[in-house]
Amino acid sequence: MTSYTAPLADIRFALNELAGLPEIAQLPGYEEATPDLVDAILEEANKLASEVLAPLNHSGDREGAVCENGAVRTPRGFRDAYGQFVEGGWNALPFDPDYGGQGLPWTLGSALAEMWNSANMSLALCPLLTQGAVELLQAHGSEEQKDAYLPKMISGEWTGTMNLTEPQAGTDVGAAKTRATPNGDHYLITGQKIYITYGEHDFTDNIIHMVLARTPDAPAGTKGISLFIVPKFLPKEDGTPGQRNDLRCVSIEHKLGIHASPTCVMAYGDSGGAVGYLIGEENRGMEYMFTMMNNARLTVGIQGVAIAERAYQQALAYARDRVQSPEVGTRGEAVPIIRHPDVRRMLMTMKSQTEAARALAYVAAGEMDRARRAPDEAERRRHQIDGIDLLTPIVKAWSTDLGVELASLGIQVHGGMGFVEETGAAQHLRDARIGTIYEGTNGVQALDLVGRKILRFKGETAQRLLIASMEADLEGMTASNRVKMIASAVGAGAESLKQATGWLVEAGAKDMSLAAGASSPYLRLFGTVAGGWQLARAAQRAEDLLASGEGDPAFLEGKIRTALFYADNILPQAVGLMTAATRGAETLGQIEDTDF
Amino acid sequence: MTSYTAPLADIRFALNELAGLPEIAQLPGYEEATPDLVDAILEEANKLASEVLAPLNHSGDREGAVCENGAVRTPRGFRDAYGQFVEGGWNALPFDPDYGGQGLPWTLGSALAEMWNSANMSLALCPLLTQGAVELLQAHGSEEQKDAYLPKMISGEWTGTMNLTEPQAGTDVGAAKTRATPNGDHYLITGQKIYITYGEHDFTDNIIHMVLARTPDAPAGTKGISLFIVPKFLPKEDGTPGQRNDLRCVSIEHKLGIHASPTCVMAYGDSGGAVGYLIGEENRGMEYMFTMMNNARLTVGIQGVAIAERAYQQALAYARDRVQSPEVGTRGEAVPIIRHPDVRRMLMTMKSQTEAARALAYVAAGEMDRARRAPDEAERRRHQIDGIDLLTPIVKAWSTDLGVELASLGIQVHGGMGFVEETGAAQHLRDARIGTIYEGTNGVQALDLVGRKILRFKGETAQRLLIASMEADLEGMTASNRVKMIASAVGAGAESLKQATGWLVEAGAKDMSLAAGASSPYLRLFGTVAGGWQLARAAQRAEDLLASGEGDPAFLEGKIRTALFYADNILPQAVGLMTAATRGAETLGQIEDTDF
Repeated sequence: MTSYTAPLADIRFALNELAGLPEIAQLPGYEEATPDLVDAILEEANKLASEVLAPLNHSGDREGAVCENGAVRTPRGFRDAYGQFVEGGWNALPFDPDYGGQGLPWTLGSALAEMWNSANMSLALCPLLTQGAVELLQAHGSEEQKDAYLPKMISGEWTGTMNLTEPQAGTDVGAAKTRATPNGDHYLITGQKIYITYGEHDFTDNIIHMVLARTPDAPAGTKGISLFIVPKFLPKEDGTPGQRNDLRCVSIEHKLGIHASPTCVMAYGDSGGAVGYLIGEENRGMEYMFTMMNNARLTVGIQGVAIAERAYQQALAYARDRVQSPEVGTRGEAVPIIRHPDVRRMLMTMKSQTEAARALAYVAAGEMDRARRAPDEAERRRHQIDGIDLLTPIVKAWSTDLGVELASLGIQVHGGMGFVEETGAAQHLRDARIGTIYEGTNGVQALDLVGRKILRFKGETAQRLLIASMEADLEGMTASNRVKMIASAVGAGAESLKQATGWLVEAGAKDMSLAAGASSPYLRLFGTVAGGWQLARAAQRAEDLLASGEGDPAFLEGKIRTALFYADNILPQAVGLMTAATRGAETLGQIEDTDF
Repeated sequence: MTSYTAPLADIRFALNELAGLPEIAQLPGYEEATPDLVDAILEEANKLASEVLAPLNHSGDREGAVCENGAVRTPRGFRDAYGQFVEGGWNALPFDPDYGGQGLPWTLGSALAEMWNSANMSLALCPLLTQGAVELLQAHGSEEQKDAYLPKMISGEWTGTMNLTEPQAGTDVGAAKTRATPNGDHYLITGQKIYITYGEHDFTDNIIHMVLARTPDAPAGTKGISLFIVPKFLPKEDGTPGQRNDLRCVSIEHKLGIHASPTCVMAYGDSGGAVGYLIGEENRGMEYMFTMMNNARLTVGIQGVAIAERAYQQALAYARDRVQSPEVGTRGEAVPIIRHPDVRRMLMTMKSQTEAARALAYVAAGEMDRARRAPDEAERRRHQIDGIDLLTPIVKAWSTDLGVELASLGIQVHGGMGFVEETGAAQHLRDARIGTIYEGTNGVQALDLVGRKILRFKGETAQRLLIASMEADLEGMTASNRVKMIASAVGAGAESLKQATGWLVEAGAKDMSLAAGASSPYLRLFGTVAGGWQLARAAQRAEDLLASGEGDPAFLEGKIRTALFYADNILPQAVGLMTAATRGAETLGQIEDTDF
């Protein structure tokens, strides 16, 4: 079990040099985000993450959340740590100042989300869900609803949850059966929801549930789903929690990981019906919920980065400390295992992909800020469609897949110690494993990418990103021979991505199931290449800074060599992924049911 | 939690059509292994595996082994199940009939090992270690030692363990400090060993520890290590367990997986010294121990296959049962998720790689049988050096890496249910995770492959396997266009492997650390291509059988389509692996300590 310190130099570099935070801070409404303030925020966040949240990560895993008679007890120290999080104003950072938010960019918020999740993913899940609920209310709630809930949810005094899943309705949310019966100014909600993260807890004195339910005579499927605010305690006139609502936590799941995060089975309306307030119009619940989900998907992607970073820090510390065997080909003294080439390969595989995924996630958050705040309508639209919409499923799925793979590699660096729970390395794999599943499985992300983000636009979104952005960037990457080599490897990857995109557009027009069969390797290919692009940009920028004598030379040299490692060890996977996403999908289509 | 049934049709096909069991049964000493007997053994083994061992897998995980005052209690039902295993004569199958063994081929033994480990990996670990200890005694023990221990260990009445690791001596076994002081006809052993699988348990009334220790004035490092038999109870004149030896289990580890398998910290000589009997000569312990390790490494590779098979069966059952969402591109009824292309991709990714790894593992076991029993000395040597020696690290590392990846994919097929421990899917990932670590980490396997199996012979072993065997096979694969396509994909992979081998031989001559940096992707490349070769052989054979009207057409068609899937979706990874194992290793060599 090791400590965590935020990789502030890496985070700053990704924010400022890659995601363009300084330009984003020029956009209307983000003027508060001055370089000095950003720096101070990052430093303070690191203190909370490293000193308060991180030390509870392992003990929280061992203790787990406990449910007794409908009450959930979180592990020792969690309630207090959450209190410090709220007190520090951390929950309010990216939200509307009209409701008590600080109005800072999501790009900066992404860096903080990374720190909270590296430090303690189980605890950080609580604000992650609240954040989604705030976004949802902000976008679709009535003025009255906003006034009643937003200030307390933005401050974090109250938390929010997301109630979609039912036993028969997982990926297919439209199959939900929870009922909502009109009853005066509200509805009565009856039904059971599962997998409700922080559906019940002891952090705050109220919990605001966002619940999908079906009104009488609603059409079947997703078009008959409405969205309701269902508070644990109904707010009184003065805004404080009043009457207990008819809802309860039935039990919590015994899970592979995130033990400290209570995953609740929630029962609504056992005693006649829980009071629920309709958000917006009936039957538009799925549409509203997507506001919340897209936000949450980006942050779940960041969880993948976060857990990979934590696993890397732990593996690195072990590799520097553990002395075993002389250097290969010698008979000298035993050396720290970081001197062994295969251990270096594992560590650099972790580091380079973590940095690639971090950069892409921050860039995606930057696109979200630009899509919201760019002064020009067409520009906002471009950042929305070619930017955040396209990148969200990639960041979510690619980063969480990496989270699992790299946490597993972190165990491997430890050898036998990695398999022993006391070490803490195994927890990272167990925790990471949920990232590929929740907020839409990675298979669903891949279908979203292929269907809604690529084929819907006949491949033009990808082509614009590839041609307008990536290829233009690559052409300008001439700062050194090293950078040219990196750019050339990314260019080869981009070529594979173009081929796969072309195939996809043709296949999708003929047969959606062919495109669906290609979707997972296609997404992986996209992430791998787009991540390489970001590392190439980092290398180019590092050369420029080196040439102008700015920055720490060792740090900047490291950026260039990390990008070179990725170019020669990770990017070469692109060709194989392209084949799997084209010819491989055709072969998949030939598989018969009897072949399994 | 689902049941397990051995995939007997697949196992028979791999044994008979790929590993050549019918030819092996012609070798001197293996004549007992008639087709009828083999069939009966497979059927009976499936009964024990599916009816006795498999139902205890999940409960064993939940209960775990418990250590109290030096005594280890295994989970409910385990002692009885082990008793049935011994009673059925299963432990004795591949051993010398002179000591009560049944003298059957290891190839057949591999298929049984797969079943035991699919059914219950934690329980199967006990005979796995005993088997290694038997091999060791058989090869290096004195006649007296063989007489005293082999009959009971071959029957399974007594179990065996392997005591290598100490806290400061993991991969570097030569750093062991446990002392052995001569004392009349025996030695007194003093020291602590860790990670001792089934170092203590309640299955049998004696446990025979194989312990590495250092005699006074022994040279430093691996050349000063001797090997001792240290029984828990010293056998009396009549062969029954007598005086308790001075050794005890101090504690057991709290691990990520294989909870039912006690991983012990063992203390030797707390009260003056445990009685130990030297095997062979002093200072040759490491050499002897490798007899045991090579055997165990092959079986650990089979554990990777076994856990992948179990995870596949569970995921497949879930995918056929779980109804969710209409078929892609339609608005019809919800269908079982196996109808969704991305789920089919996950399942076929699991199945095709499991079959490839199974085939290679059985083929490797066949090489071991041939290396022992082929009538001609040169032929035996060829099967040893180009066969089992070369293939052991590949089977061990590639199959266990796949075990982890495919068990993780098995979770993914389940969606949210996969993350809930009650489902049982998560256990397979937790159990699989040890396979890449024990019996020499996969990094150590990669170094063994590159150093001792490839470079030591200047690449000739690999070239002979590639040219003499693989390419000759591929040339003959003309049974159909489908088979030609598969063979051509394997041929492209073999080309990548040849290039990487050529690079490795050059690099190894200059700089061993370069070769070491290439070793992991090189091993993965070797496994991927060799596995593809086996599936191509399967497809060719299936076409032949189809043409001659033999066998079940649906089964044989499935073999061909599975190989096609692998050819188009897995084999294309070869180019990327080749690049990582050549240029990527050079880039790795440029990484500075400050880059981490």
